[in-house]
Amino acid sequence: MFKILRVNMTDLSVKAEDVPGAYQGLGGRGLTSAIVAKEVEPTCSPIGTNNKLIFAPGLLGGTNCANSGRISVGAKSPLTGGIKEANSGGQAGQYLAKLGISAIVIEGLQHDDKIYKLYVGKDKYELSPADDLKGLGNYATVDKLKGEFGDKVGFATIGQAGEWKLAAATVAFTDRELRPTRHAGRGGLGAVMGSKGLKAIIIDPADGEFAPLVDKEAFKDAAKRFAKALQEHAVTGQGLPTYGTDVLINIINEAGALPTRNFRSGRFQGADKVGGETMNKITVERKGNPTHGCMSGCVIRCSGIFVDEKGEYVSKWPEYETVWAWGPNCEIDDLDAIARIDRACDDIGVDTIEMGNSVAVAMEGGVKEFGDAAGAEELMAEISKGTPLGRILGSGAGAVGKTFGVRRVPVVKNQAMPAYDPRAVKGVGVTYATSPMGADHTAGYAVAQNIMKVGGDVDPLKNEGQATLSSNLQAATAAIDTAGLCLFVAFPVLDIPDAFNAMVDMLNAKYGLSMTGDDVGALGQRVLGMEKDFNRSAGFTSADDRLPEFFLNEKLPPHDVVFDVTDEDLDSVLKFD
Amino acid sequence: MFKILRVNMTDLSVKAEDVPGAYQGLGGRGLTSAIVAKEVEPTCSPIGTNNKLIFAPGLLGGTNCANSGRISVGAKSPLTGGIKEANSGGQAGQYLAKLGISAIVIEGLQHDDKIYKLYVGKDKYELSPADDLKGLGNYATVDKLKGEFGDKVGFATIGQAGEWKLAAATVAFTDRELRPTRHAGRGGLGAVMGSKGLKAIIIDPADGEFAPLVDKEAFKDAAKRFAKALQEHAVTGQGLPTYGTDVLINIINEAGALPTRNFRSGRFQGADKVGGETMNKITVERKGNPTHGCMSGCVIRCSGIFVDEKGEYVSKWPEYETVWAWGPNCEIDDLDAIARIDRACDDIGVDTIEMGNSVAVAMEGGVKEFGDAAGAEELMAEISKGTPLGRILGSGAGAVGKTFGVRRVPVVKNQAMPAYDPRAVKGVGVTYATSPMGADHTAGYAVAQNIMKVGGDVDPLKNEGQATLSSNLQAATAAIDTAGLCLFVAFPVLDIPDAFNAMVDMLNAKYGLSMTGDDVGALGQRVLGMEKDFNRSAGFTSADDRLPEFFLNEKLPPHDVVFDVTDEDLDSVLKFD
Repeated sequence: MFKILRVNMTDLSVKAEDVPGAYQGLGGRGLTSAIVAKEVEPTCSPIGTNNKLIFAPGLLGGTNCANSGRISVGAKSPLTGGIKEANSGGQAGQYLAKLGISAIVIEGLQHDDKIYKLYVGKDKYELSPADDLKGLGNYATVDKLKGEFGDKVGFATIGQAGEWKLAAATVAFTDRELRPTRHAGRGGLGAVMGSKGLKAIIIDPADGEFAPLVDKEAFKDAAKRFAKALQEHAVTGQGLPTYGTDVLINIINEAGALPTRNFRSGRFQGADKVGGETMNKITVERKGNPTHGCMSGCVIRCSGIFVDEKGEYVSKWPEYETVWAWGPNCEIDDLDAIARIDRACDDIGVDTIEMGNSVAVAMEGGVKEFGDAAGAEELMAEISKGTPLGRILGSGAGAVGKTFGVRRVPVVKNQAMPAYDPRAVKGVGVTYATSPMGADHTAGYAVAQNIMKVGGDVDPLKNEGQATLSSNLQAATAAIDTAGLCLFVAFPVLDIPDAFNAMVDMLNAKYGLSMTGDDVGALGQRVLGMEKDFNRSAGFTSADDRLPEFFLNEKLPPHDVVFDVTDEDLDSVLKFD
Repeated sequence: MFKILRVNMTDLSVKAEDVPGAYQGLGGRGLTSAIVAKEVEPTCSPIGTNNKLIFAPGLLGGTNCANSGRISVGAKSPLTGGIKEANSGGQAGQYLAKLGISAIVIEGLQHDDKIYKLYVGKDKYELSPADDLKGLGNYATVDKLKGEFGDKVGFATIGQAGEWKLAAATVAFTDRELRPTRHAGRGGLGAVMGSKGLKAIIIDPADGEFAPLVDKEAFKDAAKRFAKALQEHAVTGQGLPTYGTDVLINIINEAGALPTRNFRSGRFQGADKVGGETMNKITVERKGNPTHGCMSGCVIRCSGIFVDEKGEYVSKWPEYETVWAWGPNCEIDDLDAIARIDRACDDIGVDTIEMGNSVAVAMEGGVKEFGDAAGAEELMAEISKGTPLGRILGSGAGAVGKTFGVRRVPVVKNQAMPAYDPRAVKGVGVTYATSPMGADHTAGYAVAQNIMKVGGDVDPLKNEGQATLSSNLQAATAAIDTAGLCLFVAFPVLDIPDAFNAMVDMLNAKYGLSMTGDDVGALGQRVLGMEKDFNRSAGFTSADDRLPEFFLNEKLPPHDVVFDVTDEDLDSVLKFD
């Protein structure tokens, strides 16, 4: 049977328990949020003894369903003060599911200065000192761990940022080549791991096995239909494999929604120099790899390997949001510099979106000039060294704004906005405002309907229909995150009826259920309900479901639009009954 | 008739208007809070164009009532995000009242980098460039202004911290000797002034006159009784004039409630070395001045002039809370170092309570060692220079805790706690938790009943009666702050029935009213109601009316007590109907 692993950092015990009834039928985000909502005091200190850090593969984890290996990480967020789930690719999700583990729950706190590592194998769990890993970045940490555990395992680690408990710290997961390039990035979950004195989790899938399926044949059939849809859809079958997520630079720039110079304009002069087409071109020229999957079972393979002019590995392909955060938003048009920064962010373990915003706000505060790529790399070095300036930056854009007296700070619930200006993609603006996670494009990616016209067509510049759109997307996304599916499956799922049906069929076939499509939506709504309740108890109100005032008052060129979705509309978004 | 001065920093206009009906009958905190509640969008950026900064003398300002010259400053707080009133001694309150000005309201925003000064004289108001004051501390600012405006005026200024918009920045007011030693200290009001591009206000009382009195004889009689009570009460007539507020060091230490080493213990070994008795002794030895009033009309004169070993002026006597914040809480027992730091805080314009807490939390985070007086002075120098570390410290204890990953951060609503441990003075703990201002001893000084047994006797270590006590005190205090009286009048007012009656009689005689004592309490309740409503609209909930969890879990020696006032009790405090 599936187990929940309770890891108590206070007394250094590890116990496996059966999944309690309240948590059955949940996985991924649904499970992490259920545990946080039920077990974590909403007003506790996020880096204190009463917070818990949860790792959970999704409901479809451990199967051969395409793109089902995401892992969710949840806790009370040090960045937002609310509930947080961030999910990641890499190998951990699939491995944990194959080991029969529904969730790892890290509890309590180390009161000395020691740090530990947790080994999780087939029915073998061990917590041991990891003082030799202290102060190491994720790359060096993984190198050391490989020496001890070999390369047939997966690692979840934190860099220095997590040890320092910075609010932008991530949890890193290794990909198939054991590079720590996949991150549960948002909301400072690495700081929670660091606060507990846990540096690394080693997940050893040896002797693990595929998850049991109630109806094997039905599952096999549905999985085949699902994979076919992923390969046939233009976005997941062609755009993403060829150009990566960075294909969006030119698309969003064209739409006038690419936030430039700390959200001052929707167009960036240097867009083409940092777009996916250019990334593909130089990668091919330099003999890097333009098509790479971040986890086993991925049929989209939107990533790539970025190499320098000598052909040496620099980083995985920086994602669109990373390129945007350090590129257009800082007016930097140097893809090599951005790739080096991506590598540095992965190494120290900080969220690229939060950090790029931190630097843009610091530039607004006069710390560096916009467009200064070398200056941005210098700031990245400050973070790596943990200087006071680096710690400010690593505490997120909100902290930078407060420290340097900057008015234009693009955060919601203190989490920095991603790469879509909410004035020119109003659907995603509604998501930024209302998601329990803070400003998060992945929580309800209305860019699909607003810009790409996938799964619907809602004018991005008008406020009509955006609340309903975001509401539906947020519920669907919560369900996808609960299933452990890569969010990109949403493109075919929203566009091709049989892709959606196949997803429901797989859940039914695996668990012996008879859910309808509506039931899946209801599951997402239930997850959002738990999250919203937690936030309310933590002190959030509708005043927290608003964008910073400059989005309401400053017109964004070229469309000269403001964010004018009404408060009433915003307050309607997560009311499902 | 009395006027409200509207100073628009966007178009640089100054207009005098009659006091609108909604604001009549209000002064001081009552008026600043009424204007903020009515005119400021609760969710606006505190340093943005939509915040307003208000200066208002109290209802008894401009009379010869003893100790009636306090000036209230109000705005949405950059530190707490809620409503804020901080009041100060110095000459400004009395001068403004004599000029017939009920309030100055600073609105809008300078969008260039220029800074301005505002001259306010008898029916003459002028805004003019002040680029020559840019980057100056309060002492140098005042020196320059004296050169231009002479020494028969009062100044309200900001130091560099205000220009940098740091959340701990104060507004400084000059005392009778034109030293910028009196501050509206808490909540970052100096940052609001700085955000608006206003460096200084010059208040010229020439041709001003005492405020009109409806019943001169009745007022004269009541004022005489009031002054007599102040002089007869042991606290205001003897303790404070001789030893200053720092007399509390030994009293609170004896009570086991003197927060030491970032709120780890209630007793400080070096208490006697920094207490009021020692301050008095060395001041007398060095031929400083141990008894000095901070404003005209003061009969208590709790301040003094601190001089160094050569007899040279260092600062005004550091207040008890200042000595505590940099002394016991940082385990520093060097009164000379503390006085130099007090001077530096006054000069750069930062709140001594917030900053001492910032430094203690930084010490907890390993930035310096506890007890390192030279290190504390180095940190003060960082603030003065505006280094990244200095800006973190100047952003308050909450910001320091976040940046350096510290769990034990003694803040409520992000405002640092003053000099009374809430576990061992539970009444003031209730005030910290529930005041709309954040952790603020002056909002409901239950130390009087808990420790000094003035105005009642409530056991400081038990939770019984603390909610009712704080509730009554908060209402009474809001009324006293509305009257413009120094809070220390509360000692005789609470203890001597005729002192309270005299206060009511003065209000009635000045305005031709027939208020009862109950009406005065109701006025205070009304002010608190406006403040609480503003905070609720700004997003505050009962979750914000709580102490940090370590006060609930960590026992405070020597009494080994935790803060155990129930949530229900806390939620009852400001419910007056």
